[in-house]
Amino acid sequence: MGDTHYRIDALQYANWSEKIFRQMREGGVDAVHVTIAYHENFRETVANIEQWNSLFERFAELIFQGKTGDDVRLARKSGRTAIFYGFQNPSPMEDDIRLVEILHTLGARFMQLTYNNQSLLGSGCYETNDTGITRMGREVIEEMNRVGLVVDMSHSAERSTLEAMEISSRPIVITHANPGFWEPALRNKSQAVLEGLAQTGGMLGFSLYPHHLKDKGDCSLESFCEMIARTAEIMGVDHIGLGSDLCQDQPDSVVKWMRAGRWTKKIDYGEGSANNAGFPPMPGWFKDNRDFNNIEQGLLDVGFNAEDTAKVMGNNWLGFFDHNFGPV
Amino acid sequence: MGDTHYRIDALQYANWSEKIFRQMREGGVDAVHVTIAYHENFRETVANIEQWNSLFERFAELIFQGKTGDDVRLARKSGRTAIFYGFQNPSPMEDDIRLVEILHTLGARFMQLTYNNQSLLGSGCYETNDTGITRMGREVIEEMNRVGLVVDMSHSAERSTLEAMEISSRPIVITHANPGFWEPALRNKSQAVLEGLAQTGGMLGFSLYPHHLKDKGDCSLESFCEMIARTAEIMGVDHIGLGSDLCQDQPDSVVKWMRAGRWTKKIDYGEGSANNAGFPPMPGWFKDNRDFNNIEQGLLDVGFNAEDTAKVMGNNWLGFFDHNFGPV
Repeated sequence: MGDTHYRIDALQYANWSEKIFRQMREGGVDAVHVTIAYHENFRETVANIEQWNSLFERFAELIFQGKTGDDVRLARKSGRTAIFYGFQNPSPMEDDIRLVEILHTLGARFMQLTYNNQSLLGSGCYETNDTGITRMGREVIEEMNRVGLVVDMSHSAERSTLEAMEISSRPIVITHANPGFWEPALRNKSQAVLEGLAQTGGMLGFSLYPHHLKDKGDCSLESFCEMIARTAEIMGVDHIGLGSDLCQDQPDSVVKWMRAGRWTKKIDYGEGSANNAGFPPMPGWFKDNRDFNNIEQGLLDVGFNAEDTAKVMGNNWLGFFDHNFGPV
Repeated sequence: MGDTHYRIDALQYANWSEKIFRQMREGGVDAVHVTIAYHENFRETVANIEQWNSLFERFAELIFQGKTGDDVRLARKSGRTAIFYGFQNPSPMEDDIRLVEILHTLGARFMQLTYNNQSLLGSGCYETNDTGITRMGREVIEEMNRVGLVVDMSHSAERSTLEAMEISSRPIVITHANPGFWEPALRNKSQAVLEGLAQTGGMLGFSLYPHHLKDKGDCSLESFCEMIARTAEIMGVDHIGLGSDLCQDQPDSVVKWMRAGRWTKKIDYGEGSANNAGFPPMPGWFKDNRDFNNIEQGLLDVGFNAEDTAKVMGNNWLGFFDHNFGPV
């Protein structure tokens, strides 16, 4: 990677538009892992890929589909942002293990084994009972390892997460969450998970989603960056990056789909509440893709040197992309 | 391509097995364009691709998925056969033009615009009225040209075929048929089609399917090779190759699916008849993939020199693959 400082965001789910793509360019964002499915089945996911192909045609001077680490380098060289696909739930593969390879061929690079609820593969973080990785889950992890589709446990329960690390022959990730020691949200992660990630060569992406932040939207940049420094002491500085969970310009109907899908007829407020049902307001220092400079400055201000700051801002994710997006 | 003589078959639809893959190796076949859909819709086609992925895993020392011309060279170097996907009907793309790119990403390299009947895109060779390329057909040809999915008019009607050549900005092909001057089968092609293919840089693949042969299964090797020599006089020696249409080991139930799909409740005999409803017997000199040597010798015997024989046996197809399987 030499002296180049890459900037990678390991999770966004925006209401994509030319405006946002131009903000990515203003913010110097070389690559973004974008969610292309929450509860969509296979055919619905293909329809979402078709929509992305339409965006790649229309905005070819701003974005293109990323498939390998080298595409991040190509993005930097050509002044564009590489878009990498991921799923927050295994619903796109339905009950069909061979769809893992098909979806990887279509560009999927991350797949969460669960999204809050129990799935065919494991337990989500909102379930009362966490029964770990299922029989099918073991098979699917092996298949994901084979083709190079990364296991993401951001919305999974503790036991399932630790078991996934043990079963997987390749490193797994938490693309978007924070340590529970800083903010004890259900979605934030335990010391055991942080240590396990570091020991197995995995990655944690720090989230800017207000429900994952201390003081939510009022969280200070200094508090966020000090939390990163404390996490680096636990995990080392090579296993951490950003996964902002930026959900820019999304209408509240989208947060309903994310939370309730087709699994309930009731309203599920997820991390919100009846009084705060929509997307919560972001902190003032991170409103959109133009604000990554603030985080970079914040990291320098709490004492990270230039090299380690570059690691957190993207170089660590690039190293991970280089080794985990294809067969071994 | 230097001095290497590649051997490529531009159409087979066998009941695939280890036996056939080993016969391909014995016959020195570097690449085969295999039909993976007749009337299958998108999801059914994906299921067929899943079955191929299963074969690629099981028989990795014999076959692998081909996507580019260089994969034919890799096949030769590694002693395997590269398998290229194609459809005999546009049914896998349903009514959705954006599935063209999705299917290309999954590996499709040839698509017939029609299979005997009228499709959404054009007229098949068994229709009474040949109304040419439809409005959607024009759009789909443009999209196929953009991504590098080759237009194949093997089962199309004359006017539709000539219009496809005119509309397409890239060469089109007839992967498997013979000239009508030799055997006036409905599926064989007119002088105008042969000349048009040659003028636009397209390719004709000579078929060994008995219904396309003079004297059917009794056709002599000499007659077949003399027909090739006469075609070379019309089209030039750079635009012809093989497309055997070998349907090895298929049960008669498969020929029913090919012919009747879901479009009729009756029995359609296609090129056969009530007395001859199944797959017709192949000529004795071309029973399976081990018999390509016979054709090579037959071409030398009717006067082709070594270089031109190599062109017909595979080098012409390789040149075509090199330029037509991706964006321009």
